[in-house]
Formats: sequence, C-alpha cells, structure tokens
Amino acid sequence: MSDYTHILVAVDFSSSSEQIVTKARDIAKNNNARLSLLHIVEYLPPIDSIYEPVLASTWAIDETELLSQAKNSLKKFSKKLNLDDAQQQVVLGTPKHEISQFVKDQQCDLIVMGSHGRHGINILLGSTANAVLHEMPCDILAVKIPS
Amino acid sequence: MSDYTHILVAVDFSSSSEQIVTKARDIAKNNNARLSLLHIVEYLPPIDSIYEPVLASTWAIDETELLSQAKNSLKKFSKKLNLDDAQQQVVLGTPKHEISQFVKDQQCDLIVMGSHGRHGINILLGSTANAVLHEMPCDILAVKIPS
Repeated sequence: MSDYTHILVAVDFSSSSEQIVTKARDIAKNNNARLSLLHIVEYLPPIDSIYEPVLASTWAIDETELLSQAKNSLKKFSKKLNLDDAQQQVVLGTPKHEISQFVKDQQCDLIVMGSHGRHGINILLGSTANAVLHEMPCDILAVKIPS
Repeated sequence: MSDYTHILVAVDFSSSSEQIVTKARDIAKNNNARLSLLHIVEYLPPIDSIYEPVLASTWAIDETELLSQAKNSLKKFSKKLNLDDAQQQVVLGTPKHEISQFVKDQQCDLIVMGSHGRHGINILLGSTANAVLHEMPCDILAVKIPS
C-alpha cells in the first residue's frame, strides 16, 4: 500500500475477525506501519429510571470484570495471529464513537474493517453515512466478508 | 497491501482524482496488480413522453460524441499520471451499477474510491448502503479527501 504509518483494525471476535486482522497485519508489514487492535465492549447499563428506580445490585454487571475478560480474549487472539507486539486496546462504549476517537487520538491513517458485522463498516453508515465518513480523518478499507 | 490482483479506480475528473488514482497506482505497483480506470458518463436523455412527444433532433446530445470526449479526457489524465498501460474504460450509465458490473465482469478484488465526490464511496451508500456493500464481491478502499 502507500505510506501508511499507523493502521487500526476493529476486532469483534466474530468468525471473520481472523481474516480481517490478517489482512491488516499484512498491510502493516508491507508499509512498515504500526498496527493497533481495538475491541469495543458495547455494554450499556440497562438503567431506565424514568419508570422506576432500580437497585444497582440486582442487575449490575461489573464493568471492570467485563473489560478484563475482553482484554484476555484480545491477548489470546493476538497471540494466535503472532501479533503480540501490536498495540491492544479494549474500551467500553459505542463502536462508532470509540473508533473515531481512537483514530484522532492516535493519528491512524488507515482503518481496516469488515464489510459487515458488529465492528464492520456498517457501523459507520446508516442515515448519516456521509457525515461519518467525512468526519473520519483517514482512509477506510472495507474487507469483503463472505456472506 | 496483500495479494490484490486487479484494482479498479473510479475516476470522475474532480480535483481529488489525481490523489485517489495515485494511491491506487501505488497499491497496484506494490501488489504487482493490474489497474483499471473507469469513468462513467452519467448522461440520461431528458425524455418525458408521458406529457408530450419530443422531437429528438431538438435536444438530443450525441452520446457517441460524449463518450468520445470522455475517452480523450481519460487518456490525457492517464498520460499525466504515467498510466498509459492501465486499462481505461468509459461507459454510459449510473456509477453504482456500472462499478458493480465492472467488478464482477473483470474480477476485480479491490475498488479504490474517494471518501466523497461524484464517483466516491457515497454512491454505494444511501438507504441501501448495507445491501450494496454486501453485494460488492471485493474489498473497498475509501481514500480520505480533504473537505
């Protein structure tokens, strides 16, 4: 590819993740670029205090525990693909926002995503597709996932 | 990049075309891949015979002439970027349909497009964004165009 320096790949642990990350890894290698793996834990507490107060202890999931499990999964996943050296990041939030934030903070110049899936390019689309694509400050590669 | 063999780039002669095609050219070079340049002439005859019959001679634009002019423009454009050897194709139709058709007929494995513009990735989006992206049988790289 052409002069990429920092490549971000969004990992959702779906069956196509290996294919997408392997492609990102190859592109990083060909460009001597840094590679970062980002997994977003999409957990949102089911609070709806408009209707009735909810006692946190009855439903609360330990967010720290969720993040810790996700970090372990990402570590194993990276090891399997010989990517121990790649930056690994797990965050809690919505994929669209977290990917956008990561790209800006870390000055990525390419995002590699699946053509669909939980962390696929579809999360950047929808009714405001153009706006989101405009907003992204870098190139985006949508890797074809066989449907 | 990783093992691409035939790369398609959609050229719309906008100010960002050179940037997009140069990127596609570099990727093709790094992959020893074929490069095809496609320009779509979006002319549609303004026929509306529901209301009244229209004499073709009074408004008709010569489609052959349009295509011929576009071919010349594409030839000059390719020459400027040292791409005389790349396959050059000019067709009459709608970008979404023609790009999809070309990719299938010519077995392209990567489409390079601008992040917006007349032949940008936005033409694949809209209300059926997911459907179109699913339909495309190959990877798609959206090159960031400064807005």
